[in-house]
Amino acid sequence: MRIVVTGANGFIGRKLVRALLDRRALPGADGAPVTITELRLFDMVDPVPPAGADTSPVHVRAIAGDLSDPAALGRLMDGGVDLVFHLAAVVSAQAEEDFALGMRVNFDATRALLEALRQVSPHGASRLVFTSSVAVFGGDLPDVVKDDTAPVPQSSYGVQKVMGELLVQDYARRGFVDGRTVRLPTIVVRPGPPNKAASTFASSIIREPLNGEDAVCPVPVETGLFVSSPRRIVANLIHAAALPPARFGRNRTVMLPGLTLTVADMIEALRAQAGDDAVARIRFEDDPRIRAIVAGWPARFETARADALGFQADASFAAVIQAFIEDEMGAPQKDTAS
Amino acid sequence: MRIVVTGANGFIGRKLVRALLDRRALPGADGAPVTITELRLFDMVDPVPPAGADTSPVHVRAIAGDLSDPAALGRLMDGGVDLVFHLAAVVSAQAEEDFALGMRVNFDATRALLEALRQVSPHGASRLVFTSSVAVFGGDLPDVVKDDTAPVPQSSYGVQKVMGELLVQDYARRGFVDGRTVRLPTIVVRPGPPNKAASTFASSIIREPLNGEDAVCPVPVETGLFVSSPRRIVANLIHAAALPPARFGRNRTVMLPGLTLTVADMIEALRAQAGDDAVARIRFEDDPRIRAIVAGWPARFETARADALGFQADASFAAVIQAFIEDEMGAPQKDTAS
Ligand SMILES: NC(=O)c1ccc[n+]([C@@H]2O[C@H](COP(=O)([O-])OP(=O)(O)OC[C@H]3O[C@@H](n4cnc5c(N)ncnc54)[C@H](O)[C@@H]3O)[C@@H](O)[C@H]2O)c1
Ligand SMILES: NC(=O)c1ccc[n+]([C@@H]2O[C@H](COP(=O)([O-])OP(=O)(O)OC[C@H]3O[C@@H](n4cnc5c(N)ncnc54)[C@H](O)[C@@H]3O)[C@@H](O)[C@H]2O)c1
Repeated sequence: MRIVVTGANGFIGRKLVRALLDRRALPGADGAPVTITELRLFDMVDPVPPAGADTSPVHVRAIAGDLSDPAALGRLMDGGVDLVFHLAAVVSAQAEEDFALGMRVNFDATRALLEALRQVSPHGASRLVFTSSVAVFGGDLPDVVKDDTAPVPQSSYGVQKVMGELLVQDYARRGFVDGRTVRLPTIVVRPGPPNKAASTFASSIIREPLNGEDAVCPVPVETGLFVSSPRRIVANLIHAAALPPARFGRNRTVMLPGLTLTVADMIEALRAQAGDDAVARIRFEDDPRIRAIVAGWPARFETARADALGFQADASFAAVIQAFIEDEMGAPQKDTAS
Repeated sequence: MRIVVTGANGFIGRKLVRALLDRRALPGADGAPVTITELRLFDMVDPVPPAGADTSPVHVRAIAGDLSDPAALGRLMDGGVDLVFHLAAVVSAQAEEDFALGMRVNFDATRALLEALRQVSPHGASRLVFTSSVAVFGGDLPDVVKDDTAPVPQSSYGVQKVMGELLVQDYARRGFVDGRTVRLPTIVVRPGPPNKAASTFASSIIREPLNGEDAVCPVPVETGLFVSSPRRIVANLIHAAALPPARFGRNRTVMLPGLTLTVADMIEALRAQAGDDAVARIRFEDDPRIRAIVAGWPARFETARADALGFQADASFAAVIQAFIEDEMGAPQKDTAS
């Protein structure tokens, strides 16, 4: 099996690549494992295999380029490919700042990728897993967002993601490409320093105290969030790639399961894990702008389709914290190879 | 007010142009009537003003061209424009047959039109009314489709229409273009001979008997439909153009109201209008292919947003038939100028 990962140098991309190299095989059409023979890592920036990873016998190729450049896309697809994880994207804040850039990368490049895959796909059998986002939802939402709730995006990023979903839906329905889209919950705990995302506090309030540093929480403790650990996301992406097409019925878009939590829930899990001293590191400083943005995000979901398709949420927020400690703080890691 | 109608030579386009020429003014930003100074009729084929219509003092310009041709689009937008009714489209069957054509006309040309309007729009104040369709809905639908029901299109036409809606939503949210989308119910009674659309029978079973001709009904009498007369559609398009932007809140897409009817309801209205002899002209010949397609269309809608925004459905199916007789069979016409 020849696999492409776009955005391979991103936060999720790097973790996915490591997981694929750990597994060395994915379930094929009949469910039996098929060996990964080739892994093409594509990114604008440094798509190098994870340091120290044993990549043999998988042939790992790093291909640097801009997905919206037809020549780079041509190099990437050369000779055909069996499965694409399409993660490359311009994030929300950037797509809002630069409309043309967001349209070009998030939408036009997704369309070009689907069209290129269609050209090399025998009988439309090549698969593509597209990563959409909870950010497609906005506006006047019901209390609980369900599988049939209409996305009414309040950001250009959200609009571009839904347009990508629709193309995946149509390419799959027409038999051009065996595409499937997963909508990702907010991912916590992210490693690294806080960034400009409105959601950055959700990682900060766990990560900084665990590292003995102070964190600022700009929203009230009753604020709700719908979250998933990066480890769960990676497992669900691989699950999405392995599902037989018929399982999706007439809808190729699935909202992934996650945990509905208040900030207070998250803090209590931190206390259980790291004690009162850690919790004391969190300072509440109301930020009306962030509070308003986060209040617009739906926190309660009913993900019946994803559940029926075998996607899974984290067992608990304690498990999310534990995974972060293992994956990012050098604690002994559980076996994730199977 | 300078108005553009794309697809001006189509079924709805011709009726809209006549209604605009009858009115000669539309409500402006403050609700007071603003005189229509210029009407640009754009179509691939013969965008001529309706024969016999008194067009003065409106300056009517016919501009022939393909909307997906940048040069034609440039000519159309030259000097700016205040309001666009965007009706040009490749219909469902054609978009299904020729994927590239549907993408180019229904999506890319809509995007190019929005972008061109953005360039000439002072402070994003230029308006655009985009015509989407009940065909955006499909797949596993709830019994009653509501304003927050997710569109899961089962046709390329439906996908292209939703992608257009999303662009309108984002261009409006960002203040580029004051866009608004209306999703149209199935339009009956259409004049002219039956065409290849799966819905053609819904017009045939009324139109042919009224003309003393035989009609074939390929679906059972209990089949449900969600319909609107062309006259109501035109009135709702003009209403959509006149609504102040704030009325749309955070969602620029509105499903128009319509009548939920079974084929049996339609036939009883025909009987009341034209008697048993007319009804006897309808022959039932089951067509499993058409039956399956039509069964996939939602028939029951709750259009709370449209109702609150002042859009209206036909009073009854009897009124729909009456409008057809007046508009298409030469019967004395009611005054539609106000
Ligand atoms: N992290 C989250 O909370 C979250 C939530 C929902 C959805 N998603 C989606 O999941 C995917 C992965 O997210 P992430 O957190 O790893 O993002 P990331 O920003 O860390 O990684 C994206 C990668 O794409 C690359 N990229 C951007 N433009 C490119 C281009 N034109 N050509 C080639 N490469 C390009 C970037 O260099 C980057 O390495 C994205 O599609 C994102 O929209 C993420
Ligand atoms: N009639 C219905 O039942 C119905 C239902 C839902 C939505 N709609 C939508 O309403 C709108 C009007 O519908 P209609 O029934 O009048 O359609 P129509 O097919 O009668 O008219 C469409 C017009 O667009 C023109 N056109 C097509 N491609 C063009 C291009 N590239 N450049 C310029 N002109 C082009 C055609 O020449 C035609 O005159 C369409 O957008 C349609 O999708 C119609």
